[in-house]
Amino acid sequence: MYRALRLLARSRRRVRPPASASASAPGLGGAAVPSFWPPNAARMASQNSFRIEYDTFGELKVPNDKYYGAQTVRSTMNFKIGGVTERMPTPVIKAFGILKRAAAEVNQDYGLDPKIANAIMKAADESSNDTFPTAMHIAAAIEVHEVLLPGLQKLHDALDAKSKEFAQIIKIGRTHTQDAVPLTLGQEFSGYVQQVKYAVTRIKAAMPRIYELAAGGTAVGTGLNTRIGFAEKVAAKVAALTGLPFVTAPNKFEALAAHDALVELSGAMNTTACSLMKIANDIRFLGSGPRSGLGELILPENEPGSSIMPGKVNPTQCEAMTMVAAQVMGNHVAVTVGGSNGHFELNVFKPMMIKNVLHSARLLGDASVSFTENCVLGIQANTERINKLMNESLMLVTALNPHIGYDKAAKIAKTAHKNGSTLKETAIELGYLTAEQFDEWVKPKDMLGPK
Amino acid sequence: MYRALRLLARSRRRVRPPASASASAPGLGGAAVPSFWPPNAARMASQNSFRIEYDTFGELKVPNDKYYGAQTVRSTMNFKIGGVTERMPTPVIKAFGILKRAAAEVNQDYGLDPKIANAIMKAADESSNDTFPTAMHIAAAIEVHEVLLPGLQKLHDALDAKSKEFAQIIKIGRTHTQDAVPLTLGQEFSGYVQQVKYAVTRIKAAMPRIYELAAGGTAVGTGLNTRIGFAEKVAAKVAALTGLPFVTAPNKFEALAAHDALVELSGAMNTTACSLMKIANDIRFLGSGPRSGLGELILPENEPGSSIMPGKVNPTQCEAMTMVAAQVMGNHVAVTVGGSNGHFELNVFKPMMIKNVLHSARLLGDASVSFTENCVLGIQANTERINKLMNESLMLVTALNPHIGYDKAAKIAKTAHKNGSTLKETAIELGYLTAEQFDEWVKPKDMLGPK
Amino acid sequence: MYRALRLLARSRRRVRPPASASASAPGLGGAAVPSFWPPNAARMASQNSFRIEYDTFGELKVPNDKYYGAQTVRSTMNFKIGGVTERMPTPVIKAFGILKRAAAEVNQDYGLDPKIANAIMKAADESSNDTFPTAMHIAAAIEVHEVLLPGLQKLHDALDAKSKEFAQIIKIGRTHTQDAVPLTLGQEFSGYVQQVKYAVTRIKAAMPRIYELAAGGTAVGTGLNTRIGFAEKVAAKVAALTGLPFVTAPNKFEALAAHDALVELSGAMNTTACSLMKIANDIRFLGSGPRSGLGELILPENEPGSSIMPGKVNPTQCEAMTMVAAQVMGNHVAVTVGGSNGHFELNVFKPMMIKNVLHSARLLGDASVSFTENCVLGIQANTERINKLMNESLMLVTALNPHIGYDKAAKIAKTAHKNGSTLKETAIELGYLTAEQFDEWVKPKDMLGPK
Amino acid sequence: MYRALRLLARSRRRVRPPASASASAPGLGGAAVPSFWPPNAARMASQNSFRIEYDTFGELKVPNDKYYGAQTVRSTMNFKIGGVTERMPTPVIKAFGILKRAAAEVNQDYGLDPKIANAIMKAADESSNDTFPTAMHIAAAIEVHEVLLPGLQKLHDALDAKSKEFAQIIKIGRTHTQDAVPLTLGQEFSGYVQQVKYAVTRIKAAMPRIYELAAGGTAVGTGLNTRIGFAEKVAAKVAALTGLPFVTAPNKFEALAAHDALVELSGAMNTTACSLMKIANDIRFLGSGPRSGLGELILPENEPGSSIMPGKVNPTQCEAMTMVAAQVMGNHVAVTVGGSNGHFELNVFKPMMIKNVLHSARLLGDASVSFTENCVLGIQANTERINKLMNESLMLVTALNPHIGYDKAAKIAKTAHKNGSTLKETAIELGYLTAEQFDEWVKPKDMLGPK
Repeated sequence: MYRALRLLARSRRRVRPPASASASAPGLGGAAVPSFWPPNAARMASQNSFRIEYDTFGELKVPNDKYYGAQTVRSTMNFKIGGVTERMPTPVIKAFGILKRAAAEVNQDYGLDPKIANAIMKAADESSNDTFPTAMHIAAAIEVHEVLLPGLQKLHDALDAKSKEFAQIIKIGRTHTQDAVPLTLGQEFSGYVQQVKYAVTRIKAAMPRIYELAAGGTAVGTGLNTRIGFAEKVAAKVAALTGLPFVTAPNKFEALAAHDALVELSGAMNTTACSLMKIANDIRFLGSGPRSGLGELILPENEPGSSIMPGKVNPTQCEAMTMVAAQVMGNHVAVTVGGSNGHFELNVFKPMMIKNVLHSARLLGDASVSFTENCVLGIQANTERINKLMNESLMLVTALNPHIGYDKAAKIAKTAHKNGSTLKETAIELGYLTAEQFDEWVKPKDMLGPK
Repeated sequence: MYRALRLLARSRRRVRPPASASASAPGLGGAAVPSFWPPNAARMASQNSFRIEYDTFGELKVPNDKYYGAQTVRSTMNFKIGGVTERMPTPVIKAFGILKRAAAEVNQDYGLDPKIANAIMKAADESSNDTFPTAMHIAAAIEVHEVLLPGLQKLHDALDAKSKEFAQIIKIGRTHTQDAVPLTLGQEFSGYVQQVKYAVTRIKAAMPRIYELAAGGTAVGTGLNTRIGFAEKVAAKVAALTGLPFVTAPNKFEALAAHDALVELSGAMNTTACSLMKIANDIRFLGSGPRSGLGELILPENEPGSSIMPGKVNPTQCEAMTMVAAQVMGNHVAVTVGGSNGHFELNVFKPMMIKNVLHSARLLGDASVSFTENCVLGIQANTERINKLMNESLMLVTALNPHIGYDKAAKIAKTAHKNGSTLKETAIELGYLTAEQFDEWVKPKDMLGPK
Repeated sequence: MYRALRLLARSRRRVRPPASASASAPGLGGAAVPSFWPPNAARMASQNSFRIEYDTFGELKVPNDKYYGAQTVRSTMNFKIGGVTERMPTPVIKAFGILKRAAAEVNQDYGLDPKIANAIMKAADESSNDTFPTAMHIAAAIEVHEVLLPGLQKLHDALDAKSKEFAQIIKIGRTHTQDAVPLTLGQEFSGYVQQVKYAVTRIKAAMPRIYELAAGGTAVGTGLNTRIGFAEKVAAKVAALTGLPFVTAPNKFEALAAHDALVELSGAMNTTACSLMKIANDIRFLGSGPRSGLGELILPENEPGSSIMPGKVNPTQCEAMTMVAAQVMGNHVAVTVGGSNGHFELNVFKPMMIKNVLHSARLLGDASVSFTENCVLGIQANTERINKLMNESLMLVTALNPHIGYDKAAKIAKTAHKNGSTLKETAIELGYLTAEQFDEWVKPKDMLGPK
Repeated sequence: MYRALRLLARSRRRVRPPASASASAPGLGGAAVPSFWPPNAARMASQNSFRIEYDTFGELKVPNDKYYGAQTVRSTMNFKIGGVTERMPTPVIKAFGILKRAAAEVNQDYGLDPKIANAIMKAADESSNDTFPTAMHIAAAIEVHEVLLPGLQKLHDALDAKSKEFAQIIKIGRTHTQDAVPLTLGQEFSGYVQQVKYAVTRIKAAMPRIYELAAGGTAVGTGLNTRIGFAEKVAAKVAALTGLPFVTAPNKFEALAAHDALVELSGAMNTTACSLMKIANDIRFLGSGPRSGLGELILPENEPGSSIMPGKVNPTQCEAMTMVAAQVMGNHVAVTVGGSNGHFELNVFKPMMIKNVLHSARLLGDASVSFTENCVLGIQANTERINKLMNESLMLVTALNPHIGYDKAAKIAKTAHKNGSTLKETAIELGYLTAEQFDEWVKPKDMLGPK
């Protein structure tokens, strides 16, 4: 994971890549991107021609087809931790491209000769503590807008459609996992809809701090070596390039030394994880069966649950979703620990923090889409089963209270429970009422709201 | 902790407390409160007169001076978990009082005979799943407004005043815990100010979901057994009684089955904990010494750090604050786990969740006040030490680059580092510049912002 | 919480308590205990006579009936955080009593005049960093042995008895929450037995590091101001007084600067929490109903779940247990964060860490007892329901494979699933076998183990 | 992450891979491995020849050069979550190879025709719930033994060597981050040695439960469709193939339905993370500077910290280690949440849990090696700085107590603190003792242990 830290925090290029490599990267933004890819052993092994680059420690061989420079090579030597999966997340790479382009354009706006602008950027790199946090925020914002929010919205819409589709299906409610008074399946799903709706609200509420960019703070937040207005202009350029309302951070000291904004966003995703775990748990239990579970929902069969057992539909999408939720909760603790451990003018847990934030955003967004397409959209109500449970329920007895009194109603319920009989047959047998009265007084659809 | 669950989720009163007890509780709201106090062994042992109450299991002895009823007694028999500290938090008790009063007033507004209103409330108690979540939200909102936000505001103001007081004190910056370019102590503190300012913002951003009340949802969210408009009226009454903008929850199914709003608020406090741990860590390290630490800050001496060692001021307020932060992070995980485990129409982790949320709010609020009064307000800058470190710093060499070039500047720094000398004496010794030039070119106060 | 830190880390007594107070505390160990109780506002308000004590800051009024000294009073002034629940946990108070007595006896063994021994102890207090970690370990060990392990053992034994009681009851298995091949209810419970058995194993495995005492390390671990052998003798005395195998920590620097042993014990309790949450979740789902749940278990009815709804037994003991589990997971994160933040020669998160460790031990131990007595012991198998689900299951079709081939078996299952019929009637209807053959070939009791 | 779940939990192969592909995989164990690699979009896009495979849903195209079958393809369609990094961890793939080979050999030992053995294995796959947990334990055990423990041992040995190397260097101690009485740098490091030594102890203590294999439990733990003795024989074969003491799990119900063993191992790694974060934090603070920090340690300079600033050695290895520690703490919460959420006969959070456990093991092991090689081995004591701080310290005044009394000693310290002078010059100036007496009485090396 951490070789990336070195790479991005202090990368300096002293030598231009060979012409052939440069040829494929005409624009500054685009060109910059590949140079941030840390190499892996397999890739390096395939190289057989090198160029020589230098840093203050001496010379180093760099594969000819790589844009990266001496410090990247040194990082791969010093940080052999975690293997190939511990790379700089792609969204951060892309964010650096956007930032570089924005900075270059601002420098040109200042009327600087590109050579001088380049020299300034090199100098700024030496005190480059503001670029990584800037790229973190750009990357997080883009991932939220491109993956997380669309995924949640898709899930919301699908649940909302199901809620409306199921609006007339009356079913037994369950509290404390025990039978309770009825509600409609549509009402039950409306709770899920509200949860996902608020997940979107919560994530959006965290974004204003993410839109604040550290760029222009340079080494310790003072903005040493930048020009007045540079910070504002860069933020405006990034906003223009991305279409997102980025602004310059009002306090650059906070923006470098603390990453509370990432903890906050991670917290919003943690709440979302709770919501989605609840929904997925409900759906897998309501869809449990085919014969020995609750069986109120029929989940789509995406793959053979068992080649011989018809109806055994393993709720694999629910399982994936709940695993994602658990992972996001774990990621959140990692982000929290990192966020609490900044010291003085710099929090150095940046790569770990952004990796976990982006991981959570991607997992939640992707899982929402997968869960929607492969589960929610195909959910069917098992109305036969729902009606059976509804009619057998003892909880409907409460509807008799106003008509025959509490004591007789309780007697009916106790007798029915003891004999395994229905309320209706028991009530008639006990002589408390007629079949017609029962049907008139016990109407689940009258129990679905206030009067 | 958990006896309270039983107590509050299903408490029913069949017998009026004896007249002597009632006498001390004329108002409905006030009267209700004591009945929710779970008794503890010590208290019960001191009782020597009882009345008999009943539930469906039979008769039970209840101490004569208690308002609580049979089910409370039964709960104390069945849930001997955790001892006396595991009680219903006081803010929840108070919130129940407010809720009861609001509900009573709404029922009177409906023109109900108090007896009938009382009967309705009893019936509502039977399906009482909406009262505890309502009380949770009232309690959380009040604790946030009475303890947490005032505490944070006080801390913010004190830090802000210090930031201004220290505006002219130039000091060495530190990144990666290593010496870096300078900033002012005021700038450093301004980062803390921003963190606390945003802590307030974050907590406020979580409140709209807390202001939503479940009251009126009754057993499963449908509002069975309530009147149309009851939910809205109760929320309005609670708002009037508390002065906080409570509204009825737009979806009662979500309000009973999920407590994402508490997870969200806990998440905001978790971010706050990160902020405060960062600030407290910085201050204890900057105040470390008296001779072998960084020594830039002089912390107020609130108690003898050592009776023989003058100047040894243990940063006990920082220690308390960082312990609080760790506790809040832990509480947040407990809330998260509880929040993710709701099933069907009811999340039953309510007592555990609200206990942790209130604990975090109280700890953060109280610690902010204690830290402010006993630490921040009394912090003094050790300007002598700050100046010494500033002047000895090698980082100032960067100011020479434009004048004598990068290579000579580096030579000066390397020589000074090797010899343990200052930049100025080394530069002169190397013949690169005069003392006057050094003083003109190396001005830390010119390094505090963009040009 | 944190006033206690001050109190215990540096408490010094300059003035003897008044004679009347001393009279009730003849022994050194016993006498010392009350002096560690931090007062609360209510208690202090009730005092009307004071004595004057001194610290290096000046004089302070101390209530006459309190043993504690000036620094305790000062702590209550400086650390108004969290209110009355944030006290030093009682087990730590007791542990201090044990430690004081052990230290006093060792000093007498050295032949020291009690006055000199007292003076030495005062001096040691000045560098008293080893006493609190010692008391922490004593307290944790006692709580584990007196509350946690007995609770778990009781639960283990009850589950084990149920496993044996249910050995012959064959039931449907469930994987992915879906119907699967059969097992016995006894086998299912045997999994729970194993989990609790290993919980005991895990906690015991963590104890060797808890048995190591820091006493004798004094201020920074060097043992400055103690005599050679003191550390070993104190540990031996504590072992003798408690009957637990305490030893002196082999490395006092680690024992003061890190509290990994508490993180380790907390981790063992965290694993236990996972086990108990799994068990409690299973039991509440298996006991869900009375009509619309799985209904395989009949849980004891400890309190009215509903006064009108017979059979509605809210699984309140399961709910308490799962709340405890969530709390323990949260406590573990608090302990982890504290444990990772020690600096140099001292970890100062001690009070927060031990509070959470003791809280977890108490909650798990108490909840195990409550869950055992009020739930597990009274669990009955609903054999009628179990048999019904078993016989209706489609999973039994796998037993036909060797006899009629995979394809025909699958055809039977698919047809039965489609028609809502049983396997037996479908198989006969399809003409694949006779009723006798079905009964001979499909025997759930032959599906309970390897052949 | 989660496509792997599908793949491994229910993978079935109906069609042999084409001969050319088989040719490269002569051994059963080896051959099995590639078939478990989930493909990614990029790879699939590059394929241009397919074979047709079938599952009960119909036919599917499978790239010709892949071993995997229909269900893998279906999984890649249904679980587009998280992208290419969410693959089955390599150690699990390897573990499956070992398990397959062991199972095949056991079946041959039973004298089965390989065709029949193969058929049995296919059938066992249909109820394959025991294979994934078996592979999880094999993978975890191997990763612990090949990566984690060697890494920790290497770190232990390096710290131990440093502790001995620094045995004679007396330095100021620090408690509460404040100056305290002296100890040797070797003693300080010995605390770290002890922490890492116990980390090894803790991880080893968790292994007995990891060595227990679920193989033979099949679908729900009963061992249906296996032969008596199969479970024991497979465990023995796996033990022989790996050289690790694997045994069959004594209770297969627990082994499938709960993964407490992984939570336990993760907990041991969580404690290790606390230890390593403490050590890395100390080292970066002790090595802070070059001029404005504590400066007692000189850290090796692995890469340019700043091209112009000599002596600015960013503690990048410490930073990587502390990031790893935070990640491991987060992973532990994910594992905990997953571990607590098993239902009935199967915990379905397996892929997420093992991914996090292996991630933590790899990160801790790798980071220990990197930290050792690139930091610990090269640490030098800055004896000049250490001596300076030592001699300037006011804490040495405690050595004068026995000679001149507490009050005079305190007077010296207070005066020295006020004047910024040394103890020695102040003591002489005050006329309390001579220079010779000071040197005789104040000997830091006499303050390093008990007398």
